[in-house]
Order: sequence, then C-alpha cells, then structure tokens
Amino acid sequence: MLEEALKEINRGSAEIIDNERIEKLLKAYFEEGKTYTVKAGFDPTAPDLHLGHTVLLQKLATFQKYGARVQFLIGNFTAAIGDPTGKSVTRKILSKDEIKSNIKSYTTQAFKILDEEKTDIVYNKDWLDSLGTVGLIELSSTLTVARMLERDDFSKRYSANTPIAVSEFLYPLLQGYDSVHLKSDVEIGGTDQKFNLLMGRQLQKVYDVKKQQAVLMMPILEGLDGVQKMSKSLNNYIGVTDEANDMFGKVLSISDELMWRYFELLSTKTIDEIEALKKGVEDGSLHPKKVKEDLALEITARYHSEQDAQNAKAEFEKVHAQSQIPTDIPEFSCEGEVWVAKALVDCNIEPSTSQARRDIKQGAVKINQEKVQDMQLQLDAGEYILQVGKRKFAKLRVN
Amino acid sequence: MLEEALKEINRGSAEIIDNERIEKLLKAYFEEGKTYTVKAGFDPTAPDLHLGHTVLLQKLATFQKYGARVQFLIGNFTAAIGDPTGKSVTRKILSKDEIKSNIKSYTTQAFKILDEEKTDIVYNKDWLDSLGTVGLIELSSTLTVARMLERDDFSKRYSANTPIAVSEFLYPLLQGYDSVHLKSDVEIGGTDQKFNLLMGRQLQKVYDVKKQQAVLMMPILEGLDGVQKMSKSLNNYIGVTDEANDMFGKVLSISDELMWRYFELLSTKTIDEIEALKKGVEDGSLHPKKVKEDLALEITARYHSEQDAQNAKAEFEKVHAQSQIPTDIPEFSCEGEVWVAKALVDCNIEPSTSQARRDIKQGAVKINQEKVQDMQLQLDAGEYILQVGKRKFAKLRVN
Repeated sequence: MLEEALKEINRGSAEIIDNERIEKLLKAYFEEGKTYTVKAGFDPTAPDLHLGHTVLLQKLATFQKYGARVQFLIGNFTAAIGDPTGKSVTRKILSKDEIKSNIKSYTTQAFKILDEEKTDIVYNKDWLDSLGTVGLIELSSTLTVARMLERDDFSKRYSANTPIAVSEFLYPLLQGYDSVHLKSDVEIGGTDQKFNLLMGRQLQKVYDVKKQQAVLMMPILEGLDGVQKMSKSLNNYIGVTDEANDMFGKVLSISDELMWRYFELLSTKTIDEIEALKKGVEDGSLHPKKVKEDLALEITARYHSEQDAQNAKAEFEKVHAQSQIPTDIPEFSCEGEVWVAKALVDCNIEPSTSQARRDIKQGAVKINQEKVQDMQLQLDAGEYILQVGKRKFAKLRVN
Repeated sequence: MLEEALKEINRGSAEIIDNERIEKLLKAYFEEGKTYTVKAGFDPTAPDLHLGHTVLLQKLATFQKYGARVQFLIGNFTAAIGDPTGKSVTRKILSKDEIKSNIKSYTTQAFKILDEEKTDIVYNKDWLDSLGTVGLIELSSTLTVARMLERDDFSKRYSANTPIAVSEFLYPLLQGYDSVHLKSDVEIGGTDQKFNLLMGRQLQKVYDVKKQQAVLMMPILEGLDGVQKMSKSLNNYIGVTDEANDMFGKVLSISDELMWRYFELLSTKTIDEIEALKKGVEDGSLHPKKVKEDLALEITARYHSEQDAQNAKAEFEKVHAQSQIPTDIPEFSCEGEVWVAKALVDCNIEPSTSQARRDIKQGAVKINQEKVQDMQLQLDAGEYILQVGKRKFAKLRVN
C-alpha cells in the first residue's frame, strides 16, 4: 500500500528533492494516521484553467488520497502590487473585485479535481502584508545578489542586458517565505519553478522551521500539437471550462504518442491500468482510437458529467466519424443553375463529366455529405460542399 | 550678498549636482524671504562625533545662515534591523534605549554647530515602517539590478565574488525615499554617498515630487596625519567631546598645509578672512604657528567655551612651548644615590664626567625640565628625565 502510494506520487514527476522526507511522511500516515501538508501556489491573474494547470492539481489530489492536507495558496499579494514607474507592461494591476472573482472561478474549477474537505485555501496577503518593511529587508538579507543571478532566467537576462528590476529579486524570497509561514512539509510546482521552490526549503532553515519541505516538480504539459507547452496564447490548449463537445473533440485530436503522456499526467487510472492499456494496443487487442476515446470520456466527465461526456462522444461520432471535411477547401462560384457533373469538372475535382458520371454511379460523389443519386441533378442558387471519394473537396456557390 | 552666500555654500565642496537649483533657492530667499529645506542623514550607531562629521554640520550651518531649514534626518530605521542569518558582523542591532541615548548625545553635539531653531529633527522609521511590504516592493521596482551593480563598491565586490546581500540593494532606495517623503530641496553628504544622494533625485522624479533636490557633496576630511581619512579606528581624529586641552593640542599638531584645509572645511571665518591670513603667512607678516593657534582656539571654543580655549592655550604653552620632550626616551636604572655627572655618562648622553661638568656650568643640562645649578647634585631614589641641550634625553630610575 505504501509502495503503491509512493509510486503514484512519483508518477510523472520531473524531479524530486528529498524523496526520503516524502517517504517518511507517507509511512507516518499509513502507520499512525498522521496527516501532513502539501503546498502549491496559484496566481489569480487569469480566471481560467487549462489542462496544463491541472497537472499540479491531479498530483495534489493524489497526495490527498494518501493523507495530505493541501495548502492551496492564492498569490493575491503580488496581484495587487503596482509599478510606480509605469514601465512594466507585464504586470496588470488587478482590482480587489477582479481578484476576488478570479479566485472564485479558480477554486470552483480546482474543486473538480481536489477534495475540498482536505484543502485549506490560504492567501499570502494575510502574512506578507504584515511582514512589513523591516521584515522584508531582513528576509532579503538572507540571500546574495550573486546567488540570485544564478537563477536561469535572471542570468540570461543579465548577460543580455535586459533590465531586471530589483523587485524581481524579492518575489522568489516572498514565495519562499510563504513556506516558512505555512511550515509546509512538501511543495509542488512546475520544473520552471525550481529556484523558487528550493528557496522555500532554504528559508525554512534560516527561519528555524523544524523540518525543511520536500520539493516535487512536475513537467510542463505539452499542448495539442505535442511539442510546445500548453498555453492560451499558442491556442493549443484544452480549457477546463471548454464545452463538453470541444473538450472531447480536442482530446481525440491528439497523437497516439501524446495520448500516453496525457494518461500519465492527467488520468486517474492507476499506473497498472495504464500499462494494461498500452499492452492491449501493442498486441493489437485494443484499437488506439478506442483508448483515446476512453481518455476523452474521462477528462470530459471530470469537468462536466458522465452523461455530458457520453453525449459529446455520440455527437462527435455523428458529425465527424462518418466523414471528415477539411477546413481549407478551394472555393468556386458560378451563375445560374448548373448540372452536377459539370460542377465537379469546373471545381477541378473531376477530370471529365464522363468520369463524374461513373463516380456518381458508384456512389463516390457526395453533396453536403449526402450521396448523389440523381445523375441529372441540377444545382440552383446556394452553397454546396462537393466531394469525390475521401479526399477531394470543393465548395461551390451558385448565384 | 547673494553672490557671497553662493560662494560660502560652494566653499570646500567636492561636487554639486544642479547648482542652478541652489541659486534659485537662494535668490528666492534674498528677494522674497522664502525658506527651503536641506536634508542630511545621520546614523546613530556611534554616539560620538569627530571633526570629520562636523564638515557636513558646518555646511548645514552655512545654509541656515542663508534661509535654509535643516532636515536633520536620524536613520533610526536601519539601526533597528536584524540579520536573520546572523552572518553579518558589520551590523550590530541596537536596542531602543541605545538608539535613543545615541541620538541624544548626537544632537547635543550637533547643536554646538547648528541653529536649533532652524532645525527639524526627523526620524525615518516614522515613514519607512509604514511603507510596508507592498510599498517597499513598489519602491524596488523603480531600479534595475544592473544599475545598482554600477555603484562603485557593489561593482568591486561583485567582481571580487564578495557576497552582497539582496537587502543591501534596498538601503540606497530607502535613503532616496526619505527625500521623497521629506520633499527635500537640497541634500548634502560625503562624496562616498554620491550614488545614494542621486537616488533621492531620481526617486523624487518617479514619485512625482514637484522639483528634484540639488545635491552638494563635501570631501572626506583628512585626519591629523594629513593623509588618511579622519576616523576613530585610525586614531587620527579630534573628537567633539575631547577635553579642551587635547583638542587644542591636536589642532596645533597638524601640518601647515593641513591647517589651510581645516580652515576651509571647519572654520567659520569667511573666505576673504582666510585669504588675508594666507597672504600674511606668505609675506612673513604672520607666523604660521600663530595662525594655527587661532584655528585651535576657534575649534576648542566651539565645543567648550572661549575661556576654556584660552586656558588650554596657556596650559599648552606652559607644558610644551618651553621644552619639548620626546615620547620615546631610552630608559636606565641604577642602585643607590648617584652623582649627576656620572648619571649623564651612564645614560649615554655625555661622553665623560668632565664634559658633563662643562655642560652643567653652561646651563645646558636639565633634570625634569629644570636647569641643574649644583655641580655636585646627588640623585636619590626616584625617576628623572635627564636632558643635555635640545636633543639628548634619557629617563633614569634610581632604586
């Protein structure tokens, strides 16, 4: 049981610092029922989550399964900070109402994954405000400028003469101080957060917190393209608030390779269950499309309902499974009524009207996804999708 | 009158930024009686001032003569800040009582130079505390790390891999913010403070203070050796709380060259008066020692009284002016009574007793600074300073 728990917690992680600590925490839970805390920070600047964000939430949910209370930390402190120079375009100051509304939207989405009973929502403004000028200076005396400039992005920007505001040196310290205040046992975050996550460990030591937090880093989830990280700006994302139909369709659109990645990072199926699916696909007893549908069903059901997911599947099959129409079809137009065979030739998807007749006879010609039965069909004013076989399409407007 | 004031304010300064602003302020004072503010910061970590510190105070007093209110800023904020790492040996955290007592001692000394009626003692803890975490982060967003590392001492330490705590980047910003809060018209400080003084100007602009402060920098005063900066640790200083006799004697010990430097930076004599003294010494109508005595009298009277200064002068003349005894005299000892001529030979300051007799006859031999009259004098138990002529000395203990 302990071994299985450790395996599930390690699953998909990119790096773990102090795994021994995690083992001890789990052991104490299984043997003595002792709970422990796992912290993760969330920035309420954007109200909508996508599946990239949920990788962490899934991991938190796994921890909850094995005795953890989650410290769901809302970074509302920094969200309210202005920039007196007015130079920064990256920071948009949010009003209190905006933050509040973002937080509400955020947590509603998060509780589709997390166990609300085992979650403490905490706001770092509550303790960072009262840190005060003196506390912040003391905090910043614990780290050197040289050490800070070792951070990957700072070091790159410094060498490239890209400005780094002094305040940017304070944010990692504040994030670390959150762990001091919360006395977190574990903190999880993305691999891009490594420096800040370790800061928590270091500061806990400086500020005499009894034991330092273990750190578990999750990889960044690839977007639908399977290459770039999932993000809104790249438009390769599945939003948690996407409609059921969209969600289902987007999951089905990913490659088979990416599907296994999504299983590992997003599914609640156990490692063993996933292994069994893989074997099934390998030995041909399972069709990969069937497996992908199961994943799409699981994810869609999580953010909607089982019924919504099944409906989305049925809809998808109805619309797409029968005939796939590409999005970029060449367009044509003509005047007056036109004979269907001539239209197919004019639109360059048949070489001759005689070939067109033969194809119609064989049932290989469709108009608006329906087989053409009448060899003498005349098209009058309107728009038509003409199709020959599976690959040749044209759009025709008859004026 | 305006021209003279400007001359006196510029006197001895190492560098002035925005002298036009100072000219305008003085003009408005002379023409409309408008006052203005001049800020100077003082660190209450050590309770005792030496003349090196008073260079700034003299300059402030000059400003007061020409319409300025002085913002006498006590840096009590930083004095109370701890270092959670416990690594820093440079910062000694002061208790509230220590700070209070230091401040009292400090201001008592300062008001021997400053006009108390035209001085506002201000404490930066009053506004820096309430700046808070958010305010400090906003403040630190106004400057880049690269700009901060341009500061001379930071740049040297960074290249030498000497640790710089992140907090050290915050202190110049806080000092600059003092000028924002106080809306200072002018700030004065040592040349070593240039970076921090300019920070005040810059931040006033960022925080929309109507007009930016002019900056006047004074040179660092040389100590009694005329080479190194005056400081306690080098023991080349004249303390403001030194006894009158010590003070008078120390001023008289400086070189003629350094004397003119001290006149420029420490005397309240006008530039013209000092020029007249210089001419007198050059054309031989004034003895430099006489001029130095006048400086010693002026400085001693400032921190004690006119009478104390005159007494110190008289005492000095009595003790030192008649015969100067070097401090490192060779020491000898002998048993029982000893004849004076033999003693001089034993102590290696006469080649023979006959030569000793001749010198005694000519009045060239002194014991304890008094001429020996009796050729047969016997020295019994005690300590004696034996002297032949102006240069030969010995100390003899008769047991």
